[in-house]
Amino acid sequence: MIVRDIQDVPAVVEHGVEGVTARWPIREEDGAPHFAMRVFDVAQGVSTPLHEHWWEHEVYVLAGQGYVEGPEARHELRPGTVVFVPGGEQHHFVNAGAEPLRFICLIPHRWLEGVKREA
Amino acid sequence: MIVRDIQDVPAVVEHGVEGVTARWPIREEDGAPHFAMRVFDVAQGVSTPLHEHWWEHEVYVLAGQGYVEGPEARHELRPGTVVFVPGGEQHHFVNAGAEPLRFICLIPHRWLEGVKREA
Repeated sequence: MIVRDIQDVPAVVEHGVEGVTARWPIREEDGAPHFAMRVFDVAQGVSTPLHEHWWEHEVYVLAGQGYVEGPEARHELRPGTVVFVPGGEQHHFVNAGAEPLRFICLIPHRWLEGVKREA
Repeated sequence: MIVRDIQDVPAVVEHGVEGVTARWPIREEDGAPHFAMRVFDVAQGVSTPLHEHWWEHEVYVLAGQGYVEGPEARHELRPGTVVFVPGGEQHHFVNAGAEPLRFICLIPHRWLEGVKREA
């Protein structure tokens, strides 16, 4: 098994947005066969870009306050909020609080694009 | 998208062990195509069973203290510890602290058993 403290995993700027960083504590290169774990930090007043992609997100909010916004609604985020964003749905995460917004966000590996359960 | 507070998701006894409960905030039935999110609570002094299975675990410790033990080593757990347990490796999670041990644990859906990346 692999055991890491999240703070020992390097934070890199994500989406080219100053104030959005991601750590990747579990990647395909670690031998994870299906999906990767990332931990995002979004600075006060900052938003991830409104975007969409084929892959889904499974999110758990660790710290901070804000909201996630899709095409139809805005939902509050606080510690313990869980978000499932299906593939193909527009979304962005916004820090509307006074401290960093930190959340886990898991995504499938790229090879799973188009791989579906047999009927 | 689906947004839930983790405390609104029912906790069910897991592994038949009193003192081990799991919440399943994101399941295949929610439309999640590849993997599920669970949140475990392990009571003080309690351990999950030492066991193994084909699927991997991706774990993030939210609260509490304890350790995860595999065939070769014991690793300390505290908030922010990330654990990757590959499929086929024995493991158990032990609460060795004074408060509940809570961790997120993601697993692939069953249909992914044997589904591999093409070389």
